Amino acid sequence: MRVVSGTATSDSAEVDGLDAIMASGGERLREWMARTEHHLRRVTAEAGAPLADHANATVVGGKRLRPLLVVLAAESAGGPPQTSAGAERLVRAAVAVELVHSATLVHDDIVDDALLRRGRPSVAALAGRQVAVATGDLLFSRAFAELALNDDVAQLRALSDASSALAEGELLQREDAYAAHVAVERYMRRCELKTAALFEAACRLGALTAVDASAALADALGVFARRIGLAFQMLDDVLDVSGPVERTGKPRGTDLLDGTVTLPFILARERDPELIAFDLPSLRGEDGPQTVQELCERITATGALDEARERALAVVAEAKAALPTILPDGRAALLGLVADAVVERDR
Amino acid sequence: MRVVSGTATSDSAEVDGLDAIMASGGERLREWMARTEHHLRRVTAEAGAPLADHANATVVGGKRLRPLLVVLAAESAGGPPQTSAGAERLVRAAVAVELVHSATLVHDDIVDDALLRRGRPSVAALAGRQVAVATGDLLFSRAFAELALNDDVAQLRALSDASSALAEGELLQREDAYAAHVAVERYMRRCELKTAALFEAACRLGALTAVDASAALADALGVFARRIGLAFQMLDDVLDVSGPVERTGKPRGTDLLDGTVTLPFILARERDPELIAFDLPSLRGEDGPQTVQELCERITATGALDEARERALAVVAEAKAALPTILPDGRAALLGLVADAVVERDR
Repeated sequence: MRVVSGTATSDSAEVDGLDAIMASGGERLREWMARTEHHLRRVTAEAGAPLADHANATVVGGKRLRPLLVVLAAESAGGPPQTSAGAERLVRAAVAVELVHSATLVHDDIVDDALLRRGRPSVAALAGRQVAVATGDLLFSRAFAELALNDDVAQLRALSDASSALAEGELLQREDAYAAHVAVERYMRRCELKTAALFEAACRLGALTAVDASAALADALGVFARRIGLAFQMLDDVLDVSGPVERTGKPRGTDLLDGTVTLPFILARERDPELIAFDLPSLRGEDGPQTVQELCERITATGALDEARERALAVVAEAKAALPTILPDGRAALLGLVADAVVERDR
Repeated sequence: MRVVSGTATSDSAEVDGLDAIMASGGERLREWMARTEHHLRRVTAEAGAPLADHANATVVGGKRLRPLLVVLAAESAGGPPQTSAGAERLVRAAVAVELVHSATLVHDDIVDDALLRRGRPSVAALAGRQVAVATGDLLFSRAFAELALNDDVAQLRALSDASSALAEGELLQREDAYAAHVAVERYMRRCELKTAALFEAACRLGALTAVDASAALADALGVFARRIGLAFQMLDDVLDVSGPVERTGKPRGTDLLDGTVTLPFILARERDPELIAFDLPSLRGEDGPQTVQELCERITATGALDEARERALAVVAEAKAALPTILPDGRAALLGLVADAVVERDR
């Protein structure tokens, strides 16, 4: 049983650059994020007695990176219509994405037996896995209920596709547990499903609530966000091996200890033949936490972390390079800053 | 750990009357149900390798009572438009409801540690709770993805409301675990959430896909179905105490053993003062399975089973009585047969 959750989608390290974005976005961006926060609390509070507490405990303390993507995509695409209904549609989309993300976290904690989530006791640890299963199911349901109010089937499709992808990614990860020979392509596919798909949905939803909404624009911003999400996950996996614990808030090698094989290990195996012989399932034993520290050192020594980082940066660069072709005149400048923030967190 | 799942929504006893309905419905009804079955298998098969197997194992073997309600509600309301698109919308609605039901079953099995589900090993028992959590999440997501294709936000709202209710009901049930003093009103509320809400959604969805679709008709058929669902759950809870195991496929008192207090126990406590002193949490001990048999005898001796059954039959009668005011000329006759079938299973 682990003390701190370190699942693939945990935003475990600070995303420092978000403050810079909030500063650049000014009063208007702060207002959107405050409204999103308020609405998120209201949705969980409305759930009624036992649930409201668990649901609320779950959504509190997140970085709101995905809602931020929803809002920035909408603003890049001209912002929502200047009516109270238009504003509500944007806020609902932002809330729906965060609810799906939160649902995934609650369910991941059941799977991982994580005791802490977002710095607080996880629902699974606090109230048992029964309650955690139901709380996650409720958060999923409320996400779709909220988004249904937007009366836009394209938005609902974007969210349900992402939500299916999240579950498929989780299943792939479990299937690959302790499988040292996982190919890079398979790893990348898992990142797409577990992380990139919801980033994509966030930007799609934002674009679809905007006055300049078009399917083509939603597609293009979706591709941008998917790349950012992919890089986000790749860098998260580098941080799992590089640490240090003060930065990530969890011991090094937490994912490997769970049997989750990520890019640094895959690349290190190509460079250090002795790693091919390493018996991953042995990490399940009592000495696992000690052995995994040595494994992290060994991976680092191969230079695999630098290569993994470079690959992630290349993906971010590709995403940023496409922005001016999607939206001219720097209209997507703040989305560019999100790309920077994703990179920053690794520095 | 229980050998056979006996959760509230398990359809644990045969619903014998369904054959009579299929016979009355003729070729047309058989065709709809066959198309639903085929589409259901396709949706789970499309999910890709590891998942398809788990998802498929989950949906196989169900009675399809909820899809039947979707189809019968649609047929009562004039049937779907006679186009291939119209037919597809009805099939998708039926599939979406069954997917949500299946998702709940997979997640209930995690909670209840049930080893069998629909006569086969449960996903939780077969592949572990991690896989079961993700499989349930995927089935939920696919349900909304399927229904989104119907391009009707009213349908999506009906399903997301039901799906929220299911999760709330599960949470209430867990909160009430081993609480002997649960009030009848609280018990009824739980039945509404855990069972009646999805029955209601089934009839709403059916009505909304029909040529004579109207919000008023969907509301009225929804109320009918909610009552049927409520009675279905009440009778299921009677069967849990009355048995016999040959009929229900599970040992008597399975729910009580899990700490789930249902109507027979609540009513028996009002009749037999010694039952008030009964220490429910003691059922957790080694002697639980033996003690619960004695408890079932004791409940039966109070006459509480008859009273619970009568209350359920009154709910069904109320539902049936309303049908001619909802749809004239016997257009809802087959829905009336479903009401009969729900009662039949208790005979």
